[in-house]
Amino acid sequence: MMRAILLVDHGSRVASANEALDTLAEQVRNRLPDRVVRIAHLELARPDVDEGIDACVAAGATEIVVHPYFLGPGRHTSHDIPRLVEAAAARHPGVRVRLTPALGPHEKLVDVIIERVAGVS
Amino acid sequence: MMRAILLVDHGSRVASANEALDTLAEQVRNRLPDRVVRIAHLELARPDVDEGIDACVAAGATEIVVHPYFLGPGRHTSHDIPRLVEAAAARHPGVRVRLTPALGPHEKLVDVIIERVAGVS
Repeated sequence: MMRAILLVDHGSRVASANEALDTLAEQVRNRLPDRVVRIAHLELARPDVDEGIDACVAAGATEIVVHPYFLGPGRHTSHDIPRLVEAAAARHPGVRVRLTPALGPHEKLVDVIIERVAGVS
Repeated sequence: MMRAILLVDHGSRVASANEALDTLAEQVRNRLPDRVVRIAHLELARPDVDEGIDACVAAGATEIVVHPYFLGPGRHTSHDIPRLVEAAAARHPGVRVRLTPALGPHEKLVDVIIERVAGVS
């Protein structure tokens, strides 16, 4: 069994914003070195979710956990991403694909806000 | 001196997404009970940044820290929000207004991703 994580963000027309997800993937890879870690963008940039799932499978993944890297639940995380993930998973019947909750809300995000505020106060 | 925090998110057409910022403000208020905490949306919803700054001043704030609640630096956090904050601050010359970095990137966000992934693995 090879496990993969697919980080999915919104996607941007700004290259540096998209590259930030690559940096994040590298950090996750460093923390979970036994996992394949790939990225995808919901909109506006490639790879898209379909291509991201394919990249995980191409790397040998038999289990894929998709993480919507979004601050809160909304249409994108409750509807758009699940729909795309389901369609992509249907093309790989031997692969188990699961979806995590969005990044936020989470108490640790409050910690970061407090830290950011303290940093300029 | 009365200090305020203004949390600014992107804003959404979905009411529940906007309400999530109110919930977040409540959490920040609970952690920093000596601060006035107000919210604003960059786009698509009210109060906007201008109204958010005004709300802080109306609550008696003489120092306002504006936090862009965004996952990463980009046009919104590097250009749009600073420009709006500067214009709003210019209307209140006696009030000190500062801007924090965006929420992300931050190592604690990686912690949350790891936790989300572990939660379904």
